[in-house]
Amino acid sequence: MSSTLLSRGNEAVTINPVASGVTIRLTDHGSNWYWTAFCIFSVTALAYVVSAAFVPRKERIFHYFSIGAAFFAALTYFTMASNLGSTGIQTEFSHYMGGGVRQIFYARYVGWFLVSPLILTNVLLFSGVAWPTILFTLGAQEIYVVSVLIGALVPSTYKWGYFTFGVVAWFLVMYHLVFVARTAAKELGSDVHKHFLVMLCGISFIWTLYPISWGLSEGGNVIAPDSEAAFYGVLDVITLPILCSYFVYASRKISVERLGL
Amino acid sequence: MSSTLLSRGNEAVTINPVASGVTIRLTDHGSNWYWTAFCIFSVTALAYVVSAAFVPRKERIFHYFSIGAAFFAALTYFTMASNLGSTGIQTEFSHYMGGGVRQIFYARYVGWFLVSPLILTNVLLFSGVAWPTILFTLGAQEIYVVSVLIGALVPSTYKWGYFTFGVVAWFLVMYHLVFVARTAAKELGSDVHKHFLVMLCGISFIWTLYPISWGLSEGGNVIAPDSEAAFYGVLDVITLPILCSYFVYASRKISVERLGL
Amino acid sequence: MSSTLLSRGNEAVTINPVASGVTIRLTDHGSNWYWTAFCIFSVTALAYVVSAAFVPRKERIFHYFSIGAAFFAALTYFTMASNLGSTGIQTEFSHYMGGGVRQIFYARYVGWFLVSPLILTNVLLFSGVAWPTILFTLGAQEIYVVSVLIGALVPSTYKWGYFTFGVVAWFLVMYHLVFVARTAAKELGSDVHKHFLVMLCGISFIWTLYPISWGLSEGGNVIAPDSEAAFYGVLDVITLPILCSYFVYASRKISVERLGL
Repeated sequence: MSSTLLSRGNEAVTINPVASGVTIRLTDHGSNWYWTAFCIFSVTALAYVVSAAFVPRKERIFHYFSIGAAFFAALTYFTMASNLGSTGIQTEFSHYMGGGVRQIFYARYVGWFLVSPLILTNVLLFSGVAWPTILFTLGAQEIYVVSVLIGALVPSTYKWGYFTFGVVAWFLVMYHLVFVARTAAKELGSDVHKHFLVMLCGISFIWTLYPISWGLSEGGNVIAPDSEAAFYGVLDVITLPILCSYFVYASRKISVERLGL
Repeated sequence: MSSTLLSRGNEAVTINPVASGVTIRLTDHGSNWYWTAFCIFSVTALAYVVSAAFVPRKERIFHYFSIGAAFFAALTYFTMASNLGSTGIQTEFSHYMGGGVRQIFYARYVGWFLVSPLILTNVLLFSGVAWPTILFTLGAQEIYVVSVLIGALVPSTYKWGYFTFGVVAWFLVMYHLVFVARTAAKELGSDVHKHFLVMLCGISFIWTLYPISWGLSEGGNVIAPDSEAAFYGVLDVITLPILCSYFVYASRKISVERLGL
Repeated sequence: MSSTLLSRGNEAVTINPVASGVTIRLTDHGSNWYWTAFCIFSVTALAYVVSAAFVPRKERIFHYFSIGAAFFAALTYFTMASNLGSTGIQTEFSHYMGGGVRQIFYARYVGWFLVSPLILTNVLLFSGVAWPTILFTLGAQEIYVVSVLIGALVPSTYKWGYFTFGVVAWFLVMYHLVFVARTAAKELGSDVHKHFLVMLCGISFIWTLYPISWGLSEGGNVIAPDSEAAFYGVLDVITLPILCSYFVYASRKISVERLGL
């Protein structure tokens, strides 16, 4: 599908135009980058499927979650590359292009809603914490995603109230990762702990940059939608194909029985 | 409620009209069929409730999922019979009525999103596969439903990209049903295997027809919304009251302990 | 955030106005009450977090669900206090202000969709019923919430069909609470049974008033949106900070092992 479209140039922005009143919008450059990321996620999903075939069925749980995450991410990026899944919202600030109606991709948040709990589940199952703790952390993560989504869709200054909610929920997630899950991983042995620490450092650093990107794009209207695409896209690519692949690699060396599954 | 309305004729299409620009729309004939299917699903839900009362509480798990599925299906068909839960989308092709704005029932997909995982859970629990496999298959099924929903709502040719995504996810579901779950069911004994094979044949045949119906109605605009109602409706009625009832009947003969629950 | 806004008076209704056609709308009075309830839920969430710190991690499951519920409720009330999360729907009846377009807060239902299963899970886990029964009851509760949401959004008399669906689902929930869960709680000992009965009386009384409030506001357009805010708000405050806090208090005296967790 996409290859046919690409062969005659990427016309996504023309074929699926946003409403005429939306002045701060994605251009071909941003769409091309989204197509690139889409290809990265699709290849990642395929690679995980192949990798799963070489693992006994009972050890595949981490593969299952990773395949799901990569699949959802590919679907999300297909949507944004096609210039779909967006709406126009009046900006609060006039930093970029003097303000106006900005194209907000709600599809991005739908994607995170589906992808981020899968990645978190992977990490938390790997640390061996109890399932009520996992459920609570996933709940906090979903509150974070939904809060910043609403914040992105609210035109008035009240958006920062939702952002604040989201950041509080995000601190709850980080608290459980850094204090609860790390302690639990330590008890599972030094090799699990080492792999967990690599993941933890990666995730806490990358995921801290997401709220900053939000503040610069949907929140503060400081950077262009194309720059927003680049910023979020790089973070997503580091999270999913890189960090999650390290994780899949690490999980192949640890039996799921040691993790209490 | 509905009986009062029906006694003075089915005025759903008049009382809950679609926007005036929607030219390819449901008529009284389609709405009448939706009401019929609504009655079928309601009676089915009631029959499952009665059947559950004759089963020990610990054996009721399959009844619970089936009651939920029938209830959701009834709610969905009530919505479509009332001419609600739809929106107008510009058609890509002009096969039917020369194209234009077609009435797309997103309520149908919301219903599938809720009903199909319940039926799949029934089938997969019956086969005795492990819960990570069940979760992964349900996830793939939901990706399938969401993909064809987005595809139905996208006016441009990009809808076929989502359709492709959906079909890939659907192949993942079928792979797990035909290869993974069938093998697992075999190990549970010949009677479980026999019942599972009947369900599997039914589901793989009927669920293969859904993408075809999508291609003819929301996708290709080949058949009228009334014919779409008949096509999808017949598939839904075969899936839920017929296949699922066979399943409830079969599950009453097999103790849940044999299935590892 | 909110304190800054409140210091120059509550301008939420002015800053986040509804569409001009919506004549039956929230005023400053309703918004002020929503802010008050928001503060109550925020303090409740904080109190549960503090309380959780004094409980061993393995006993925290009821705290986790309660913190989540209070957090979601605070987010919901922040939204409604900000005059967000609402849309205008043509009323069926002309009891209040002669009818017209009424402001319907769909955010309220999104909040219930997230909060009510958490509270129900608390109650049902406390009674020690099996997890298929819990899942089924939660499913029925979600059908109830979604049905009355759709009913609130449908302008025609068909809204009462959805209301009927919702009430049927609500009876299923009540049946499981009063007959199934109560019997199960009895077997866990007289102290668990006593606490369960207090919760059960509270919840069955308060939750019976919700459909009445719906009938008077979204359904029948009898009372003003401000009165709707007061009616629903009082019910929510009794359910969450009062009943749920009693529950958290009771759960601290009962080991989770006795509940089979």
